[in-house]
Amino acid sequence: MSAINSLANIRIVLIQTSHPGNIGSAARAMKTMGLSELYLVNPKSFPDEQANTMSSNATDILENAVVVDSLLDALTDCRLVVGTSARHERSLAWDILEPRACAEQLVKQAQTAKVAVVFGRESSGLTNDELALCHHLVHIPTNPDYSSLNLASAVQIVSYECRLASLINPTEESSVEDQTEERVTADAMEGYYKHLEVAMIEADFLDPETPKHLMTRLRRLYGRVNITPSELNILRGMLSAFQKRK
Amino acid sequence: MSAINSLANIRIVLIQTSHPGNIGSAARAMKTMGLSELYLVNPKSFPDEQANTMSSNATDILENAVVVDSLLDALTDCRLVVGTSARHERSLAWDILEPRACAEQLVKQAQTAKVAVVFGRESSGLTNDELALCHHLVHIPTNPDYSSLNLASAVQIVSYECRLASLINPTEESSVEDQTEERVTADAMEGYYKHLEVAMIEADFLDPETPKHLMTRLRRLYGRVNITPSELNILRGMLSAFQKRK
Repeated sequence: MSAINSLANIRIVLIQTSHPGNIGSAARAMKTMGLSELYLVNPKSFPDEQANTMSSNATDILENAVVVDSLLDALTDCRLVVGTSARHERSLAWDILEPRACAEQLVKQAQTAKVAVVFGRESSGLTNDELALCHHLVHIPTNPDYSSLNLASAVQIVSYECRLASLINPTEESSVEDQTEERVTADAMEGYYKHLEVAMIEADFLDPETPKHLMTRLRRLYGRVNITPSELNILRGMLSAFQKRK
Repeated sequence: MSAINSLANIRIVLIQTSHPGNIGSAARAMKTMGLSELYLVNPKSFPDEQANTMSSNATDILENAVVVDSLLDALTDCRLVVGTSARHERSLAWDILEPRACAEQLVKQAQTAKVAVVFGRESSGLTNDELALCHHLVHIPTNPDYSSLNLASAVQIVSYECRLASLINPTEESSVEDQTEERVTADAMEGYYKHLEVAMIEADFLDPETPKHLMTRLRRLYGRVNITPSELNILRGMLSAFQKRK
């Protein structure tokens, strides 16, 4: 199973969610990042129209959501279980991970088995009994003066990190930049610099006796642009137009 | 200014937001990550009770939010402007960043100047004119089959990455770029584009009846260079020399 497909093995578990709208928003957040498996432990109201509304067409995730009575029922087949914590559990001997490191572990394990990320109640998080079922805790580094992260936002960040971790597999990486127009050759750039130098000398902007410094500055400037062939055409066309000016 | 304090210099700009609730959710998302500066370009309804409700006590951000008539008014003092794009702008020669790389640049620049991240309308994103004011685009890597990221969720992810970037130990950040000159303001770049446009019209290279496409291409090209003040002096001096040519 490839890394990107491992997202199918990452289960999001929401415990006793009070607001059905949050379940819908969480489903939407999951789906934008390619996650699909949702378990709900004793939700206050589900199915619920508000959940459907907030899911914004991620209704397939809601339709396939599994409702269970206890957290253990949501985890039986999972090899790795990570609990989310809004607080820094300083007093506990927990292995607290940042979302990024946590996602790496989740994606790795999910290549061969089910894994789960558990999100507690909106108001009070996870109980000690629930924490005891988790192998790790993940803490999203929030503003210490205001850590009021919405449930769906927490799901969004963890799902986002899982997606990024799943994309690390080099064969899956088709970066956006690869698809943009290619860069010009070094040769073509040399042609441009030559053209620029001549035009500047003609315009008395560059002293041919001491051309070095100015050309160096301009090479540095244009050198970091990654100019495309069509852009170079524009720049050279412009230069020619300036040269022709009477 | 330390890296963590640079969050105060990162401005979130929301354009023509339709749902006031989204403005509140975005404020909450910002505050959980330590961001505070919100600009609203022609919001449909603001202030609005729904925004307050959804902000969940991030009302200070809403109270201090600045409402403006045009995107340019929200950017005049900004040295770096990043636009968010839901689509892969494949055909354009944009410098498209991932949120992580984008956040690093924002935090770095924000140590000495204002920077902005621009979010478009819920339905239709940013117009081409708005994109033209951005130096870079950031694309959140979503599920290609379902990229329906909620506005506040997009703000959440970008803010989260900014917070992470700000938490990197400043002593680890000793790249060569830190020692380079700072970049020019959006205002200064607008002055350059105006100058360029006039010079090109004088040289019959630009048809003032249909200036749009060419200026857009040039804005995109120069927008991704991170031009410094002394470089801008060179470019403007060169233009003036070309204009004076007999």
